[in-house]
Amino acid sequence: MVLFRRMLGEVLRGARVEREMTLRQVSAEARVSLGYISEIERGQKEASSELLASLCAALDLPLSQVLREVSDAVAVEEGVAAPVLTGAPTPIKVGRPSGDVVASAA
Amino acid sequence: MVLFRRMLGEVLRGARVEREMTLRQVSAEARVSLGYISEIERGQKEASSELLASLCAALDLPLSQVLREVSDAVAVEEGVAAPVLTGAPTPIKVGRPSGDVVASAA
Repeated sequence: MVLFRRMLGEVLRGARVEREMTLRQVSAEARVSLGYISEIERGQKEASSELLASLCAALDLPLSQVLREVSDAVAVEEGVAAPVLTGAPTPIKVGRPSGDVVASAA
Repeated sequence: MVLFRRMLGEVLRGARVEREMTLRQVSAEARVSLGYISEIERGQKEASSELLASLCAALDLPLSQVLREVSDAVAVEEGVAAPVLTGAPTPIKVGRPSGDVVASAA
């Protein structure tokens, strides 16, 4: 079973780390206890809607974007391909053929 | 402040109505009390992640899709344009040049 709070926690933690913010900073900004935020990030506690709004504000991140990222992460776990948002094709990764090692001129 | 539970409730109610299911049917399917589901639909109660998963299963709706719809609804309330999902360009409206009236052959 894909749990919303677990995916939400991962997205919130990712956003915080991306912003190079500490738990302490988010805690002070959102006026939420550090321990509580930590539990939410680890998917151990449900965040109330008001708390979620405060965390989004502290991270300067729209709630809609958080939910979209959670939706995408959940879709991956559900095994459903997330809808492609851009018209750009996925670049084809051109790999070095295996075994193609340049011999050293010994 | 845009509250997650209010938008979630609207999306869940919309999905249920679309499926022509009654609260009683969803309640029996999800094994959640009818009153509780009603409160969630009205945005008055937070749904736990487990309950949300049960409701999604009862509605035969992936959690990712619910969250995407909530994200889109929240984006509208935030005043942020939801990302365009298709690559189709906005059609250019070709207007009749002003004053360009074909003279009638009198």
